[in-house]
This record gives sequence, C-alpha cells and structure tokens, in this order.
Amino acid sequence: MKALVYHGPAEIAWEDHPKPVLVDAGDAIVRMLKTTICGTDLHILKGEVPTCTPGRVLGHEGVGVIESVGPGVTTLRPDDHVLISCISSCGKCEYCRRGMFSHCATGGWILGNTIDGTQAEYVRIPHAETSLYPIPAGTDEGAMVMLSDILPTGFECGVLSGKVAPGSSVAIVGGGPIGLAALLTAQLYSPATIIVIDLDEGRLAVARQFGANHTLNSAAGDTAAKVLALTEGRGVDTAIEAAGVPATFLLCQDIVAPGGIVANIGVHGKPVELHLEKLWSQNIAITTRLVDTVSTPMLLKTVVAGTIDPLRLITHRFKFDRMLAAYDTFGRAADTGALKVIIET
Amino acid sequence: MKALVYHGPAEIAWEDHPKPVLVDAGDAIVRMLKTTICGTDLHILKGEVPTCTPGRVLGHEGVGVIESVGPGVTTLRPDDHVLISCISSCGKCEYCRRGMFSHCATGGWILGNTIDGTQAEYVRIPHAETSLYPIPAGTDEGAMVMLSDILPTGFECGVLSGKVAPGSSVAIVGGGPIGLAALLTAQLYSPATIIVIDLDEGRLAVARQFGANHTLNSAAGDTAAKVLALTEGRGVDTAIEAAGVPATFLLCQDIVAPGGIVANIGVHGKPVELHLEKLWSQNIAITTRLVDTVSTPMLLKTVVAGTIDPLRLITHRFKFDRMLAAYDTFGRAADTGALKVIIET
Amino acid sequence: MKALVYHGPAEIAWEDHPKPVLVDAGDAIVRMLKTTICGTDLHILKGEVPTCTPGRVLGHEGVGVIESVGPGVTTLRPDDHVLISCISSCGKCEYCRRGMFSHCATGGWILGNTIDGTQAEYVRIPHAETSLYPIPAGTDEGAMVMLSDILPTGFECGVLSGKVAPGSSVAIVGGGPIGLAALLTAQLYSPATIIVIDLDEGRLAVARQFGANHTLNSAAGDTAAKVLALTEGRGVDTAIEAAGVPATFLLCQDIVAPGGIVANIGVHGKPVELHLEKLWSQNIAITTRLVDTVSTPMLLKTVVAGTIDPLRLITHRFKFDRMLAAYDTFGRAADTGALKVIIET
Amino acid sequence: MKALVYHGPAEIAWEDHPKPVLVDAGDAIVRMLKTTICGTDLHILKGEVPTCTPGRVLGHEGVGVIESVGPGVTTLRPDDHVLISCISSCGKCEYCRRGMFSHCATGGWILGNTIDGTQAEYVRIPHAETSLYPIPAGTDEGAMVMLSDILPTGFECGVLSGKVAPGSSVAIVGGGPIGLAALLTAQLYSPATIIVIDLDEGRLAVARQFGANHTLNSAAGDTAAKVLALTEGRGVDTAIEAAGVPATFLLCQDIVAPGGIVANIGVHGKPVELHLEKLWSQNIAITTRLVDTVSTPMLLKTVVAGTIDPLRLITHRFKFDRMLAAYDTFGRAADTGALKVIIET
Repeated sequence: MKALVYHGPAEIAWEDHPKPVLVDAGDAIVRMLKTTICGTDLHILKGEVPTCTPGRVLGHEGVGVIESVGPGVTTLRPDDHVLISCISSCGKCEYCRRGMFSHCATGGWILGNTIDGTQAEYVRIPHAETSLYPIPAGTDEGAMVMLSDILPTGFECGVLSGKVAPGSSVAIVGGGPIGLAALLTAQLYSPATIIVIDLDEGRLAVARQFGANHTLNSAAGDTAAKVLALTEGRGVDTAIEAAGVPATFLLCQDIVAPGGIVANIGVHGKPVELHLEKLWSQNIAITTRLVDTVSTPMLLKTVVAGTIDPLRLITHRFKFDRMLAAYDTFGRAADTGALKVIIET
Repeated sequence: MKALVYHGPAEIAWEDHPKPVLVDAGDAIVRMLKTTICGTDLHILKGEVPTCTPGRVLGHEGVGVIESVGPGVTTLRPDDHVLISCISSCGKCEYCRRGMFSHCATGGWILGNTIDGTQAEYVRIPHAETSLYPIPAGTDEGAMVMLSDILPTGFECGVLSGKVAPGSSVAIVGGGPIGLAALLTAQLYSPATIIVIDLDEGRLAVARQFGANHTLNSAAGDTAAKVLALTEGRGVDTAIEAAGVPATFLLCQDIVAPGGIVANIGVHGKPVELHLEKLWSQNIAITTRLVDTVSTPMLLKTVVAGTIDPLRLITHRFKFDRMLAAYDTFGRAADTGALKVIIET
Repeated sequence: MKALVYHGPAEIAWEDHPKPVLVDAGDAIVRMLKTTICGTDLHILKGEVPTCTPGRVLGHEGVGVIESVGPGVTTLRPDDHVLISCISSCGKCEYCRRGMFSHCATGGWILGNTIDGTQAEYVRIPHAETSLYPIPAGTDEGAMVMLSDILPTGFECGVLSGKVAPGSSVAIVGGGPIGLAALLTAQLYSPATIIVIDLDEGRLAVARQFGANHTLNSAAGDTAAKVLALTEGRGVDTAIEAAGVPATFLLCQDIVAPGGIVANIGVHGKPVELHLEKLWSQNIAITTRLVDTVSTPMLLKTVVAGTIDPLRLITHRFKFDRMLAAYDTFGRAADTGALKVIIET
Repeated sequence: MKALVYHGPAEIAWEDHPKPVLVDAGDAIVRMLKTTICGTDLHILKGEVPTCTPGRVLGHEGVGVIESVGPGVTTLRPDDHVLISCISSCGKCEYCRRGMFSHCATGGWILGNTIDGTQAEYVRIPHAETSLYPIPAGTDEGAMVMLSDILPTGFECGVLSGKVAPGSSVAIVGGGPIGLAALLTAQLYSPATIIVIDLDEGRLAVARQFGANHTLNSAAGDTAAKVLALTEGRGVDTAIEAAGVPATFLLCQDIVAPGGIVANIGVHGKPVELHLEKLWSQNIAITTRLVDTVSTPMLLKTVVAGTIDPLRLITHRFKFDRMLAAYDTFGRAADTGALKVIIET
C-alpha cells in the first residue's frame, strides 16, 4: 500500500509500505477513507518528538471502513464505517477504568507515534472496540474527522478542564485550529464572554465568525490590560492556553481572575516561569491534559444534533496521492489560511 | 490596653496601644482570651509583607469574649465566647456569595495585616457575624485557636484542593505546623498512603506520631525516586506543597502521578520554574489558595466529635505579657521544637 | 398605600394598607416599579398554603427603587434600582453559608407568605443586602422581573438539579411558565434533545418556538412509549417535573433512563406513588428543591449578554390599579394564553 | 462438578452439574476457592427474582483460581488468583464507558441470575478482564470475598450516592450485613455522627462495635423523633435505606434534613409512598443504585492498607459440600447471628 512515512527531521515521503496485518486478538484493520494533518505531525517533522522514530507511518486521525477484525472483537465487523480516535484505549487498565484513556497502559497516543498511523491506505488499530466509534448513518464523514482529535482536545483540555460555565468569561490565547476548536465547544456551556487573542488578523476574523465576543491582536501590546478592561478589572474565569510557548502561558497567568483556571492545551517544548509569588494567594488552578477522548460520544451527539458544525474548521481538501501537497499547505498556514485539511480517497 | 505592635522589619514591642472602638454597624469588639503566632507573622517581621505597615497590631488568630457589637449585629451578643476567623468575610459581595471569603471585597486577610489584629487585649472584628463562630460549650478553647487559621488552611488549601480521597496516595512536602495540619486533616478522607517529607528529623518523628505512613528526610537525596518507589513507580495522587520555596515546589512536580494534583499551601516569595515540557501531557492540576475558612463549621464539628485533636499541635504556652518570649520560642522552632504556641490571659 | 391583600380563600382586594416601615437594621423599604403573579399566588388563593394568613399582602417578585435603608445596610442606598429576590437570605446562617438560601433561618420564602409582599406600592425587604440585586444600567426592567423567581426556579430546580449537559436528553413535563423557564435555561447547557409534554396545544406551540426539539400532547396517550421511541428506547437523562400533580410525577418515573435524574419543580399537594420495585436498580436520582436564587447573579449576566431573553415569557401588561384584572387574566391562562403578566406603575 | 442448583421457589440442591466451558473470546473458567451467600440469593429462593429460572447455579461472589482463558484475554492467565465481581462488565458499551457497569449491555448482574454462578466448583466468567481482579499477594482470601458485592454495594449505593462527608450526620436504617457494610465504609469519610437503626438488639450491638455513634431500636417507637433529637432537630444529612421495605423507606423520608440525601440500597418488592407534599421544598435527593463495582480497586487498596477489615463481617465458615447447611445458617440469621458466611474448599 501507499503511506506517508517519516524518515527523520524534515524528511517524509508518500511511498510503498507493507500493508498492516492483524497482530493481537483485539485488533482491526481499517481501510482509510479520510485523514488529516495535526500540529503534532509538524512537531514530529521538526524532530521534537523523540518517541517517533524513522520509518514510522504518521497520522492519528481519520475515518475508514473495517476490513478485518481479530478474534477478540465482537461488536465491530467488516464494512463498518468507523471514526478513529487519536487515543488508543484498552478499556481494561486502571487508567482506562478511571476514564483517563490518554495514559492507557498499552495505548494512549501511539498511532503515528510509536506504531504506524492513519496517513496511509490501511492502518492497524489496536484495542479496536474501545478506540473506534461507528459512524451514524447520514453523517458527513469529513465532519467526523474533526472528532478524532481536534474537537475532543479543545473541549476536554480547554473547556472541561477550564470549567467553562454559563455566564462565565473565557480567554482563548491562540487562534489556530485548536484554539478555534475550544471556541466552538466552549459555546456548549454559554459563557457570557469569549475573548480570542492571536497575532494573525485572519485568524481573529475567523474567531469572530465562530462566535468570539471580542478579539485582541497581541501584536498591539498591553494585552493583559485590555483583557482586564473587558472583565471589570477582574480577569477571566478561564484562560485557555492554545499556543504552547512561554509568552502565551505567561499571558494566561496575567489575565486569570482570582478563583479562575488556566487550562493548558499547548504542547510545550521548554519550561516556563510560574509567578507563584503573585499567584499563591489567588485561588487559581492550572491544568494540563493530553486528550482522553472520553467526550467523543457526547461530541458525536452534538454534531448529529447540529449544535456544532465541524465542517467550519475545514479549509482545504486533497486526494491521498497529494499528501505532500497537503503537508505543504498545512505547514504554511500563515500564508495559505489553512485551518484543517482533509485528505481523502 | 497592651498589644504587640509592629514597628518595621525585626522590630516589635508589647506596649500600650489605644483600645479599639466600634466603627461600622457590623463590628464587634472582642476581649482576647487566647491567641497564637503564625508563620505569616514571621514573614511580616522580615519585612516581606508590604501591605503591613509600621504601627500595626499583629495577629489573626484566637478566641475571645464579645464586649460590644454594632447596631447591625443581631446574632451575637456581649459575653459570647467566639472563635475568630483569620479571614474577615462580609457575606454579601460576589466572592463571599461564591464561598471565596479570602477575596471578600472588604475583607479577606486584613487582621494583623491592613487593620489591627488579635495579639492584643482587645480587637475590633469587622463583619462580625460572618467572621466569628460561637464556641460550643465544653470545648477546649486552646484547641479552638487551631481553627482560626492552621487547620482550615491545611484542609482547604492542601486536602480539599488536592482532592485527597479514600485509597489515594498523598505526599506532604514540608513537615512544619501547616504540613502537620494537612496531615491531620487529610486523614478525614482515609487515603491509603501519606508520605511526609522534611529536612528535620524531629518533625518527621512528629509526623509519624500524627499518622504518616512513611517519612523521608530530603537531606538524604533522591527524594523523588524514593516517592516513586513507594507508589509503584507512579507518583502520588496529591502532592501538597507546605514550605513555600522553589525546591519543594519542584519536588512536587517530580512526584505527582499522571492525573494527580499539586496543591500549593506555601507562601512563595519568588517565581518558580514549571516544567510544562514534561507536564503538558500528564493531566495534572496545580492549585493555589489563600484559605477561605469555609470549612470552619465542618472542622468545628469534627473537633467536637473528637475525630481531630488540635491540641496535638500545641507545644508551648505563654501568658499575654510574655508575648515577646512566645515570638522568640516560635521563631527558633528548629531549636525549641515549637509547633504552635498558645498565648493566653 | 395600595396593596393586594389576601383575606382568605378566593378573597383578595386591591385596597389601602399601612405603608411598611424599617424594622431591622438590615431592612430596606422599596417603592415598587413592576411586579408579577406566580402560580404559587394562585395556590394561596385556593387556601392551600397554610403559612399565609388573612391580611397578608401577596407577591414575591418585582423590581423597584430603594426609598430608605436600615443602619446595618452599607452597600445599597436610596434611589438604587433593584431586583427583588423571591427568597430572603440573611447571608449569615449555616444554610446561607452553604448556598441554601431557601432554608435561611430567618428568611427563605417569606415575602407574600409570612410577611407582606411585593404586590403593593411599597414593600419592606429584610436582609436587603443579600436579597436585592442592583439592576445594571440599560437593562429592561420588565425582563428583570423574570429573574425574581421563575428563571432561577426553572434553572436551579430543573436544569441544575437535573444536571442537564451538552449532548444529553431532557423531557420537561408541563409546559406552563415554569416549564418554559426550564426550557429557556436548559439550553445554556446545549442538550441534544429537549422534549416538552403538555395537554395544551397552545403551550406546545410556544415550547417549539422557545427551542423544544419535540413536543408531545399527553392527551393523545402512550406518552412514555413515545418518549422512549425518541430516545433509542432508553428514556431521558433528565426528566423535569413542572406540573406538581401525581400523574406527571408518575410519567417522569416511566421515562427516566438508567443513570438519569427526575428533577421536581412542581409544588405538590399530596403524596405520590414511587415505583421503587422497578427503580431500585436503575441508578436514578429524584431531586426536590425550593429555589435558592444562588444562580441569580449568573442569570443576570446571561440576560445582559443576550443569551436568554426573558421578555419572551411576558404576554400581558397591566397598571398597578388593575391588579385584580391581572389576577383574572393569569388565573384563566388556558383561555387567555397568559404566561407571565407584568403589573407596573 | 458439584454446584448449588436452583429448582424453583424453596428448592435448591447441591448436585452434579456440567462443568462450564469457554464460550466467548473474553471468557475465563475459574475454579472456585471461596464463595458466600447474599440476601439476593434468599430473594431468588422465595421466587421473587423472575429473571432467575430453574436449573440455574446460584451465587455471584467469591474468589478462585483461573483454569483457562479465551483467545481475547491477554492480561490474565491460568493459576492467577482472582476476586470475582458480582457485576460483569464488558468495558466497551456506553454504560461501561460511563462507569455504570451495572447496566452493561451484555453484563450487569448476570452471575447466578441469568447465567450460572459461583456457588459451584467452577464458574465461567464472561468479560473476564474487566470483571475479575487479581488478588494481591499476602491478602486474606476470605476478606477478599467481601469485596465481590457487599462492601462495594454498601459503599457505592449508600456512602457515595449519599455523599457522606467529614463532619456530616448519617443514619443507616437496617443493621444487616449490607447496613454494616455501609457503616464500615462510611467511616472512610469521617462523618461526625452515625446512627444505626434496627429491630434486632444483637445487630445493634454489632453496629456499636463497628463504629456507630448511636443505635436505635425501632421497636421502641418514635424513631424519627429520636433521630431529630440527636441532630439538633434538623435530621440527618444522609439517610441510608438498607432494608428494602416500605416502612424503612418512609422512615428515611421523615429523618432526612433539608439539603440531605436518602440513599436507597434495599431491594424493594413493591411501591412506596413518597411524601412530595412535604418534600417538594426540602431540597433533598433520593438515589437508587445497583452496585457498579467501580470502587472495587479503591476498596481493595483500603483493605490492603488495613483501613477496613472485612473479616469482621464473617461469622460462619463451611466447606463446599456443606453448602445447604450454610444456606440454613444464613437464612435463619435472626437465630444464628449470621452476618456473612464463607463457603470454601
């Protein structure tokens, strides 16, 4: 089959690769219909993810159709159309039983990282019954791809950990795809105010279309003071960090209200300074989270009900054999305006 | 009257001071029966609390008897014996209505900080009805003094914010009075393992008497590795920071399990490094909190029921006119073995 | 002054009544600008509320302007426009400190019940600072009247107790004003499905306009079966009882899913049969609640933010001197189509 | 093999029965080491459990050693000693993913009910990996049997659903084995007061030994008044129904405080009267629950830590071939003083 293979920093190729076979009793082999590219894939390309070694097929998102299942699989069968979760979950270990699938003893984020992933014609999915979701008939499968990772990540790491609530105030620091996913899903809880902060006017314009009440371009300076001015001098109840660099995390510390939460989504590459000399008495919480995808069934219901329209996140579409073009478009998002790209058969 | 007056860094005196009078409709004047000294008072003495200016009567803990009340006070009357909360709470502002008394718009930690405090023969208590608690008949009033600050602080900032639970694992980093208060109150939730970490063998011995399952002297090195060894390699569900210095906060980051909480109690004077490059994917929370004293009524019940015995925290007793000796004994805790001292009439 | 006085079952008059005066230090005298009539007032008229005795001025809702305050009141002053909570709360007793204002030791639902109420030119409000809310400038004061009782009641007793959540299914049994208030506020949590059930086609039509996904006329029979059919045979996550009669409570038992909640709002006059022989193993909860009005500040924010438009509940308006006509219109809601009426100066 | 087979109301025999074999990929065959008898088994004997049909091997508790596993089982192997959960859980269905194993689509309470159970020399356990727990080395296996059903049932249905908390007040209505299990596990949360109510003085004496602060013999009458007298006239925060008859459920309604919870554990055979005309305004919750056994891993930790000693529940021991004698002793508990009996090899 064809697959997008990582050969080391900045080296990927769309090339022949052995088709996966069933290994464990709980496996499924899935023929891919649609996949996408994640910011994390770009981190891998930069050589920043040491667990991902050369020779690996990348990708942890997508929808497909089941080709075969192992002898332990009883609730899925060939020809089922399924959504692939970016997190593999055995459903049996202590972490899975607590709902913390991200730290599954034999799963977690392994697809396109420590085992071959979804940017290929076929993929092997371990723990298939607890890592795949049947797609309801009549649903747009492109929309479904947004449920593999980006929507549950924005929702769980940003909105749930941040305890967004009716009437509350929220700042989302970083208006890229993941910040926009937080923006879309935050509205499930009807906060009174959502402020989106970014350096890119194009993204801020999208944020306003997606429901932000206020947008701030941090290039203009004084961002913290502006957030305080928008919140009666108090700061926000929830500050969602959706960029993954020290500057944005520092900004979150400056704008969180007493009693509020800084919910980190960003993938950080270095330590940051934590101003405990100011924050120790502020009754705040800082949360981190690798998405567990426990909310996927609920998000699926809201998509079916039409409450959230994930298609708004999709800006470009490519065929599988133009995978490298898709990477190029997604990698140059500032120029191309790409949010999420769909790669399909 | 006589009072302990702060005259600037390292300068305090037990001297004549004007007796307080009723100012606002909700005030009470309380004749002090017993008070104590807090680690925060020592911070003030070092000049590290800029809100506390020379001329201030120190102290934010104690029990006393009401002498007079303002016209707005209907539920307390002269001769009532009362416990004084370290936090003054109006009961009316948005923060008080949310149970976040620490950030009361006209209260919070003001006693012995921005208004005169309890290390005196008399004290004025603003918002008396929501800042004083009648003492149940037959209760030891020395024990009650431990409910002014140290027990609710250990409980709310450490145990509640840290979500200590039946069967869980807890590390308390810092075995001073506040760490021991966390140790006593953590046992209300029956964790399976409590590890206390300190540099002082004397304190570790006390911790074992107070119910610690394991103690570690951090002077011996490799503390994080030892904590992991005690917790099947996983780390603790709750790491309580009870020292307030960068090294202990860093240790908490190293020993918290995926899905766990670092609950900060310590008063920090400088920023600390936060290892987000490791923690971003660990599903942890870091909490900070100035005590709200919302748990005081509950803790009072557990003391009356005999579940917690606060007298175990009291090592020394002084008369009011030996206030300076009490400060000396408490300030040299490493030598004197002082935990909490009681100063009484 | 003029006031609506209850003289016993079915006997009310708009008549001269002594103007209230300040009694306690925490009181305020409020000149009424707008009030309304509640279903509970009709219960009183039927003689079903024994705590309300002849001679009482009715009414527990409204907005007005402060005329005078007692010496204990520091945060409100004459000429302030205020929203009157249907629940008086001292802010000091154990129940108030727990946020259960409905059971305040010296408050709770007393207005128009055990003390004179708001259907009058003036009213005395005890515990003024914790029972009145300043009205933000520029807000429609008719809309504010809906925040005195009906919106917090629908929200707290129905939506909060019923744990309505993104993606969940909700049935509201009873499409009168209180059921519609639950319908409006349930949408703050973005459930996937809301089913409203009533006998009145007019009310069902309103429910559809207000956002119900499905409506069922219970006169047609087989209601439980139809609800199961709409929920994949499972029943609803939240069944909100908003009628207060045995038949509707029984229906709630029949339609609640395993793991679901029956949230009772209705004022019941007699016992109901509870089918524990079926429900003991169904992991359900049944909740009851007299509104606490703890959510009033939050609901105020959502109204100011435009998320909820309470004016949709107002169908009729009267001047104060036509109070009896307002009662007649509201009492014959089936004929007049009345939801909430506003009575104003 | 030998097994205890149900042949219809009041007819059981210890007789030859086909040894179970592996059926599904996730099955395990377990050789039983120890089992016990549950109150529910007596219900079956009375013909009150229609899902359990003649020919069924009874029993849903015990420990054993794995003899063989199906091809889908990867984390358990022959010779492992395991605790058998009374609830079979697939770990994959929507209910299991929500932690509501009791309503597992292909599991729940099926052992000794709809499939053959544990009162036999061998048993087939479906969904073995998510329904069996490895027994830690060095643990008493008789104590482990108490973790199959009675301790998680008392804890989840009584203590967790009842939100027992530090300082709170608890009444347990029914002092049989399940009420005593609630009593033991309630103490994990350090309530200030636990009152146990029963008709049997022997059981009340045991309750006092197990930690009850007060016991009341309901035969003496005025029980509700006595509970109010013990709780400052307020009633209890948590009333645990552990008998399953209308009289005890009615008593719970009479003694629950405003804001409190009635947590039902009892298996009820008929409807009960619910006094909504009194309770509608009392802000209470009534909960029901078939045990989910989600707390089994936590309870295991507390047993290993020595916090709970389940052996205190065991009063009699029998060999497997004296199964009928065990039933007789357990069935005549009022005479024999039996709490839990162990039947072992």
